Amino acid sequence: MPMEKSTLDAQGLERYVTNLRPEFEHALARLVEIPTVSMDPERRGAMRAGAEAACELLRAIGAEARTIDTPGHPLVFGKIIQNPAYPTLTLYNHIDVQPADREKEGWRHDPFRFVNDGGKYSGRGTTDDKGPALTAYYGIRYALQQKIPLNFKFLWELEEEIGSPSFAGVLKAHAEEMATDSVLVSDTIWIARGRPASPYALRGVQAALLQLETGAKDVHSGLTGGAARNPIAELMDVVARCADAKSGRIKIPHFYDDVAKPTKQELESFERSGFSVAEYKRAHELKSLRSNDKTDVMRRIWTLPTFEVHGVVGGYSGRGVKTIVPQKGEIKLSMRLVPNQKPAKIFKLLQDHVRKINRDVKVIKENTLEPYMGEFSGPYADAAREAMQYGFGAKPALTREGGSIGAVVTMQKILKAPITFLGLSLPEHGYHAPNEFYDWGQAAGGVKMFARYFEIISRMR
Amino acid sequence: MPMEKSTLDAQGLERYVTNLRPEFEHALARLVEIPTVSMDPERRGAMRAGAEAACELLRAIGAEARTIDTPGHPLVFGKIIQNPAYPTLTLYNHIDVQPADREKEGWRHDPFRFVNDGGKYSGRGTTDDKGPALTAYYGIRYALQQKIPLNFKFLWELEEEIGSPSFAGVLKAHAEEMATDSVLVSDTIWIARGRPASPYALRGVQAALLQLETGAKDVHSGLTGGAARNPIAELMDVVARCADAKSGRIKIPHFYDDVAKPTKQELESFERSGFSVAEYKRAHELKSLRSNDKTDVMRRIWTLPTFEVHGVVGGYSGRGVKTIVPQKGEIKLSMRLVPNQKPAKIFKLLQDHVRKINRDVKVIKENTLEPYMGEFSGPYADAAREAMQYGFGAKPALTREGGSIGAVVTMQKILKAPITFLGLSLPEHGYHAPNEFYDWGQAAGGVKMFARYFEIISRMR
Repeated sequence: MPMEKSTLDAQGLERYVTNLRPEFEHALARLVEIPTVSMDPERRGAMRAGAEAACELLRAIGAEARTIDTPGHPLVFGKIIQNPAYPTLTLYNHIDVQPADREKEGWRHDPFRFVNDGGKYSGRGTTDDKGPALTAYYGIRYALQQKIPLNFKFLWELEEEIGSPSFAGVLKAHAEEMATDSVLVSDTIWIARGRPASPYALRGVQAALLQLETGAKDVHSGLTGGAARNPIAELMDVVARCADAKSGRIKIPHFYDDVAKPTKQELESFERSGFSVAEYKRAHELKSLRSNDKTDVMRRIWTLPTFEVHGVVGGYSGRGVKTIVPQKGEIKLSMRLVPNQKPAKIFKLLQDHVRKINRDVKVIKENTLEPYMGEFSGPYADAAREAMQYGFGAKPALTREGGSIGAVVTMQKILKAPITFLGLSLPEHGYHAPNEFYDWGQAAGGVKMFARYFEIISRMR
Repeated sequence: MPMEKSTLDAQGLERYVTNLRPEFEHALARLVEIPTVSMDPERRGAMRAGAEAACELLRAIGAEARTIDTPGHPLVFGKIIQNPAYPTLTLYNHIDVQPADREKEGWRHDPFRFVNDGGKYSGRGTTDDKGPALTAYYGIRYALQQKIPLNFKFLWELEEEIGSPSFAGVLKAHAEEMATDSVLVSDTIWIARGRPASPYALRGVQAALLQLETGAKDVHSGLTGGAARNPIAELMDVVARCADAKSGRIKIPHFYDDVAKPTKQELESFERSGFSVAEYKRAHELKSLRSNDKTDVMRRIWTLPTFEVHGVVGGYSGRGVKTIVPQKGEIKLSMRLVPNQKPAKIFKLLQDHVRKINRDVKVIKENTLEPYMGEFSGPYADAAREAMQYGFGAKPALTREGGSIGAVVTMQKILKAPITFLGLSLPEHGYHAPNEFYDWGQAAGGVKMFARYFEIISRMR
């Protein structure tokens, strides 16, 4: 079915966007400078302040908004019911962010200071996900001003970066009030600038800690070396037996059993996506990859699970070499999971495998996010593609995404409404990385994209 | 040849020791509270202050003492020539210390504050090596008061913990002034309290860093995981291929080629040493060992080389799990070497082996100390045993030691004089460990031991 033509006033929308810029920048600065690091127990005050700031924003466009307390950080919920007869669209974003350490990570400025360098907005959370949240927000304000016949609900989460532990509980408890006809998620990443992407699947994740303690204190490696066990070396041995570091191949028995193979159609869509290994490497500033074959790289990041070491705690990491045998060690790791893999089963496989290798190693479960598989095609997917074309003048690619959004799986299960992804982040924006940024180009096109999307959705009765 | 009987006034010596205690504690407190961490470039002031304090001590007993500048930290040299006809004994100690971090390492108090808990002296450097240095110093003061016919020279180093990089240069440059008839080193450890040991061999060490950088920044493990290389995982793979973590067996080809096997005599002496696996575990607070067989444990710590991981730098080591692919990683490692192994050859073997496994990994040479093999028997060894018996009422064991003292090899080569080890540290004192301590029991017996040793040496013409 061909898409109906837009009746939006293109020039008026252009003016709206142009005039919006100072206000957008001011609002983004305010959000970014509230350090909403959900992982850090010392940031509880900032989490609360971030939620309040978000409520204020929603109220400013006429929403009935409030924070809902959870066992963890609050959830921001808002609604704008123009007419109960209109369809309802729920906007999902998150306004919590990853940790950031200027010294250790090499930020060019304090990560919780907002720096606007001629439309390049840097600071922790600019692109993940405060910038896209605000972009959608201003798209909704435009839709309201234009009287587009659509009701809006807002789910702005503050626990996304810690795996959304309270989200399902809140949604279940408020299912009726949160009922919706469709969900729009703006927290995904394009193939490249000028190459929009609307993903239909996400990877999940199962994080874990491996811990081993063999002594009560660090000891002298001359006096004890050879007899004393080395917990870090033993943990390294465990890791080396869990996955081949060079190929990335996971060695845990039955790990790949449930992996859903991508269909021929999906693989063809990947090939048409415009993905480029050179651009990908440049965007993520990677010197070399495990593979330089385009098809293989896409397969690796979108359709295959991983076993990733994030860091090691224990021993000596200061200046020079201190010749101790460490008392204990801890490996921080996670496994990205793909559709059909079950986190609980995967964690059990890890646990059993580690126990067989070294029974003294403790395997501790951390964040869990299920993988997500949406619809490869359908009216919402068509609407997303048309909106991206409208906002940015380019056809989006239909791809999967390698990241995880736990809340998406929850919304699929509880809200039982179709979910569309209209992300705005670019690979070079640096999700979870130092010197994260967002930019006005993506915001400006994004507002238009959202306006067009709302127009199409409002006609779907 | 039976040892001549002592002509020391046992009661007078006992009184000297008893009266010494407050002065000893005061002097030790002063030295310990100067944070002479040779590894830390920010401690240059403390290094200088530590050297000056040492000079003052030496001058207080009539020594002509000065600091000798080196490209690194100064060396303290002193001499007391009572009569050019007397034999000369050189006392070697070091007054630099290992780093100490109260928070990270779990010290019960500021490591650079001296705490005297009824004769238990805690603080960084109390047992390694400021306490033994002072004990020998007060032994020398007694010998001088008693007019024992011996000249003394002092070599108090401030670069021992960083592998004595300037020591050989200084000794060569001042070889004539530093000429001596014998060297006494007090920086070794007993088998257990009540079980003195005088080692005749030391292990060497070759430290190294393994570094790998695969990106310009930490990246998101969802967006890049599977395609991005993981430098820490690759380094773990390298480590796992260098040594078997559980057995300690080193897998680097030709690593064991030059290892000198202990003789039957040596092994018999080990068996008679009184070494106990249970006491050893308790002293070092080790929960479990790679072996529980007494003979095997002694063989491992005294006669076999090691491959030890001290720590890992890179990635995320804060709270929770941060799902990044690290930009780079660094492994801090060292290999303890045993007599006949050559550090340069061993480093080359490591380098070649790592290059074969992963050509992107940089192998950087750090501290080097050659292993040392002294005399298993002879007049100085006999004197040491008699002195330990006199001071502590127990026959010392003739063993090797697992630690390394680079300066010993240098003194052997340049001073060409016999070297004797009269250490006073106990395993539980915690060399290089948090909550390091020394105690009055060892100091009191030590002063007597040294007095007797000087008496015997003065008769050796």
